[in-house]
Amino acid sequence: MTSQAATGNLVRTQGVTAPAGFRATGISAGIKASGALDLALVFNEGPDYGAAAVFTRNQIKAAPVQWSQQVLTTGRLRAVILNSGGANACTGALGFQDTHATAEAVAAALSDWGTETGAIEVAVCSTGLIGDRLPMDKVLAGVTEIVHEMAGGLTGGEEAARAIMTTDTVPKQVALHHPGDWTVGGMAKGAGMLAPSLATMLVVLTTDAVADAQALDTALRRAAARTFDRLDVDGSCSTNDTVLLLASGASEITPSQAELDEAVFAVCDDLCAQLQADAEGVTKRVTITVRGAAGEDDAVVAARAVARDSLVKTALFGSDPNWGRVLAAVGIAPVKLDPQRIGVSFNGFPVCIDGAGAPGAREVDLSGADIEVVIDLAVGADSASIRTTDLSHGYVEENSAYSS
Amino acid sequence: MTSQAATGNLVRTQGVTAPAGFRATGISAGIKASGALDLALVFNEGPDYGAAAVFTRNQIKAAPVQWSQQVLTTGRLRAVILNSGGANACTGALGFQDTHATAEAVAAALSDWGTETGAIEVAVCSTGLIGDRLPMDKVLAGVTEIVHEMAGGLTGGEEAARAIMTTDTVPKQVALHHPGDWTVGGMAKGAGMLAPSLATMLVVLTTDAVADAQALDTALRRAAARTFDRLDVDGSCSTNDTVLLLASGASEITPSQAELDEAVFAVCDDLCAQLQADAEGVTKRVTITVRGAAGEDDAVVAARAVARDSLVKTALFGSDPNWGRVLAAVGIAPVKLDPQRIGVSFNGFPVCIDGAGAPGAREVDLSGADIEVVIDLAVGADSASIRTTDLSHGYVEENSAYSS
Repeated sequence: MTSQAATGNLVRTQGVTAPAGFRATGISAGIKASGALDLALVFNEGPDYGAAAVFTRNQIKAAPVQWSQQVLTTGRLRAVILNSGGANACTGALGFQDTHATAEAVAAALSDWGTETGAIEVAVCSTGLIGDRLPMDKVLAGVTEIVHEMAGGLTGGEEAARAIMTTDTVPKQVALHHPGDWTVGGMAKGAGMLAPSLATMLVVLTTDAVADAQALDTALRRAAARTFDRLDVDGSCSTNDTVLLLASGASEITPSQAELDEAVFAVCDDLCAQLQADAEGVTKRVTITVRGAAGEDDAVVAARAVARDSLVKTALFGSDPNWGRVLAAVGIAPVKLDPQRIGVSFNGFPVCIDGAGAPGAREVDLSGADIEVVIDLAVGADSASIRTTDLSHGYVEENSAYSS
Repeated sequence: MTSQAATGNLVRTQGVTAPAGFRATGISAGIKASGALDLALVFNEGPDYGAAAVFTRNQIKAAPVQWSQQVLTTGRLRAVILNSGGANACTGALGFQDTHATAEAVAAALSDWGTETGAIEVAVCSTGLIGDRLPMDKVLAGVTEIVHEMAGGLTGGEEAARAIMTTDTVPKQVALHHPGDWTVGGMAKGAGMLAPSLATMLVVLTTDAVADAQALDTALRRAAARTFDRLDVDGSCSTNDTVLLLASGASEITPSQAELDEAVFAVCDDLCAQLQADAEGVTKRVTITVRGAAGEDDAVVAARAVARDSLVKTALFGSDPNWGRVLAAVGIAPVKLDPQRIGVSFNGFPVCIDGAGAPGAREVDLSGADIEVVIDLAVGADSASIRTTDLSHGYVEENSAYSS
């Protein structure tokens, strides 16, 4: 799929290796019992190594998050090693040692290959079941193998995107080619635990633009606040959420901060749409837009309250235009609203006007896969949207049997 | 069922008419298409008429809530009329007129019967689908009929409890006979939209104790804060939640405030357990207890965050001891906790000790209908519990087809 963004072409057949200066691949290291791909490496060949990141706000942080937070304080990154098949969360001091040993092994293998690298230049990301130690014999053997494979010259962005999948059904990647001859690429995984202040989600973004750590940090925070932070599938927030942005400078072009912001936003926004469309058990892609709010924060809080409401989400699963549940959900949000003037529409059809039902509201057709809910709080001029999904039998099925 | 409370015997075969001085009944007024009971009346014969109430904190308040809030500013109540089959919420000015007309009709019928009553002494409660006007011809004819039926001498507490049911499968009532020769009775409905700051829920409590409106208000607020406010089935909060407490003084006994507090709490607590057990789609009765908190508010916030987490609730539906999801859920709550010392147990079995998995944690048997989750935040001495349920296929089924 190719589509036109404000800043250039979005191409979903390319990912983290679309920008110059990056290599990546994915292998099966045997961490997953199924034998599926489970180890990914993204490597920055330079000449620059600036990097930025945002991490989960969960107080319970997985070992790889604790490690990568330390690494990113340097604003510099040579490589990212990612595994599926285990979150390495709630694994105590030994789990942290496992993460550290993994970064050391990557650094050693890259150094052996001729690229002098320290562990402090290697971020680690893990995803899977919380609470179990990783099979470190397999992880460490896999690290040696994956560096050799990558050194062979493969630029396997799609293999990397496949290797980080858990309950995802499709790999998620996209690249944006800026008309100014530089590129931003990205890959993402995440299907459940998609929630506030980051979905459960691993995302690696790459660019060959020339940009220092500060410029990258600014662009990433601005983009994440309006994309990943506004994707809320089930209100759950993982212990492992990580979004990384690496710049190689290989294009030798220095975009303005505004250009970089816009390009990173476009890539994050597209990856978000892909995450939403592949969420666990999804049968409807739902966007909740709140407008007429007294401030943008109010709009986000109100839209999130509706996006998380189980009664709204089950009604939408049933294609039921039960707009009263939307009002009940938004009414409990701690935001300013006017009960006498509040309005709701489904797919552009007004179902509630001035706080009461509109003619024909019960007959609105919600049988399609996309549902747009717009709520007008009628007290101001600000707006915001949250992407979510319905609450289906599929979601219950998948999540009642995940670890068993 | 009869059980022993600290303050006396709890009897579930009796309800609002157990205390002296109260009459009640329920009839089919034709509001529900099914012909089931749908109109209830609770009448206080005095000699006292003190009353207290708590209402939904939802900003979108149904017409009967707006009306009853005005009535309760007087601290006095002669009667409560309740209907199922329609919430009369989001029905605009005409919906409010309908509620007002209903109260006027009850007052007129009671006055005709010889009990001079004003509309301002009549509370109105409604439950059902949001957004539709009530069939007022049927409601008003029903009011005349129900007052006649009640005047016939029936004390039909159970019929009243049945007439307020929506998706409830059983009527919920209980009475507590205090050894000091006074009684508190109650009835409740509510099966979904059971949430914070009141479940979607109608509750009428009665007592023949001598107690003024202030004493009743104190007892009711204390009890509600620790019972109904800590029942959270799906995080949703209705537009119609109402809890009323009426005192007839017919026992001529004046309990101490502490005695009244304790008795009202015991009745509310028992009704909560009944609401939890009959929640929509419930297959597990789950209690989330947080201890070791820095304050009781922190304990409530943390327990509620876990009680609302869809991934925890689906895991419990699958009898899956996936304790990592409990940590992920509590970690996002805005409370103080120690990630290195936090602990979790399921049904008394420690599954997480000092932030990491305990031996045998994946084998804990959760196949029974009752699950006790205890989380130790390890930072203080305060605790609180939230009652909730699992998230099942039954919940999704019932709520995706409610209005259709």
